[in-house]
Amino acid sequence: MSGAKVRLFVDHPLGAGQSVPLSRDQAHYLFGVMRLGEGDAVALFNSRDGEWRAEITEARKKAGELTCVDQTAPLRMPPDLWLLFAPIKKARTDFIVEKAAEMGAAKIVPVQTEFTNSERIRQDRLQAHAIEAAEQCGGTYVPEVAELQRLDRLLEAWDPARRILWADEGLADHSAQTRPEGEGPWAILIGPEGGFSPAERARLAALPFVQPVRLGPRILRADTAAVAAMTLWQVTLGDWV
Amino acid sequence: MSGAKVRLFVDHPLGAGQSVPLSRDQAHYLFGVMRLGEGDAVALFNSRDGEWRAEITEARKKAGELTCVDQTAPLRMPPDLWLLFAPIKKARTDFIVEKAAEMGAAKIVPVQTEFTNSERIRQDRLQAHAIEAAEQCGGTYVPEVAELQRLDRLLEAWDPARRILWADEGLADHSAQTRPEGEGPWAILIGPEGGFSPAERARLAALPFVQPVRLGPRILRADTAAVAAMTLWQVTLGDWV
Repeated sequence: MSGAKVRLFVDHPLGAGQSVPLSRDQAHYLFGVMRLGEGDAVALFNSRDGEWRAEITEARKKAGELTCVDQTAPLRMPPDLWLLFAPIKKARTDFIVEKAAEMGAAKIVPVQTEFTNSERIRQDRLQAHAIEAAEQCGGTYVPEVAELQRLDRLLEAWDPARRILWADEGLADHSAQTRPEGEGPWAILIGPEGGFSPAERARLAALPFVQPVRLGPRILRADTAAVAAMTLWQVTLGDWV
Repeated sequence: MSGAKVRLFVDHPLGAGQSVPLSRDQAHYLFGVMRLGEGDAVALFNSRDGEWRAEITEARKKAGELTCVDQTAPLRMPPDLWLLFAPIKKARTDFIVEKAAEMGAAKIVPVQTEFTNSERIRQDRLQAHAIEAAEQCGGTYVPEVAELQRLDRLLEAWDPARRILWADEGLADHSAQTRPEGEGPWAILIGPEGGFSPAERARLAALPFVQPVRLGPRILRADTAAVAAMTLWQVTLGDWV
């Protein structure tokens, strides 16, 4: 641990003696909101160089600079797990992105399904949520949030070496597996409210790299299902083992 | 399934031919919001008699009556799992209650710990969230939301036959179990932001009925930890097995 109260993601190289300029928003957050000043410590990470303890060496109203002192944690990459989900209402979409970052997804892919209501996402806003979640949870890596993609096209171009754990609410009452099986890269696929269309279900069921998973006898909301499916994966094949 | 679009929890006996009066809020929801009218079907459950298909037999502006036709699902009790959690910010507290109901907790107990900020909860509002979640997730049972209790007093009076799965963020970097062990009644205990106090941690660690559980290498927010811990429990000892 760095001893610092604030953790900050920066898109800048980190290393001993390295100086790191702050953006206007970051300066406002550190000096205006958190009331830090010159000499105070901040923990920095950038998804590449681990976590560094840095000292505030310049604090102005709308700008500032930090200087890296020493590395306080190595880079810890999440396992090679993607989360594919259909965007839902704004607050719950934000929530899914936050949870995916906390739970240790390496990449977050919003997908448009037949029953997806929203046809647009604000990728920049979702990426900011992923950054904030990584800052909060002590991670040293921020998952990339991809642009919205159509599920059918994504499946056409899919690398079959990456298995898909498919949380299929249609399975609620049937017997099905509750654990993912097989090493290697994975993705978790969570459906929209209203589930997948019959055509989508037929297609997913026929793909050899897709493994359905059952998440209990109740129908979970998409955000709950995302956390539950990631838990099952992490505790079976991921970095919770 | 009942074929009805709307599921409604009612605190009233259900049975063939039974008439069920609607509260003002329920009448507003069914007739004003959902635009249902006489002859339309609604699915009812009451935590005791399973799910019933009922027909709207009277629809007035601020009142109404349903008549039960036939049972569409038996009562399915959740496993004997309680969720104990320290209330956090309002939106996340609501969220934890919603998730607990979806995930199949039998009882939800807000606890006040040394580092809990809020000293009050709105039990009625949280109970309403649990009802709404049960309506949404297809459950036939609504978990009771208890009044806020102090953790130290709760532990003093604890029935040692009910084990506690303790999600201890202090364990993040250590090796610890990732599965609950032992049949019987259980509770899951999730800490507040900032974790448990050193005194609380020492006490919990010394109790023979408390089993710590590790939830991966990142520090999870309380709401994420609640879903993750309930997933681990449900898939190991609960009704997801």
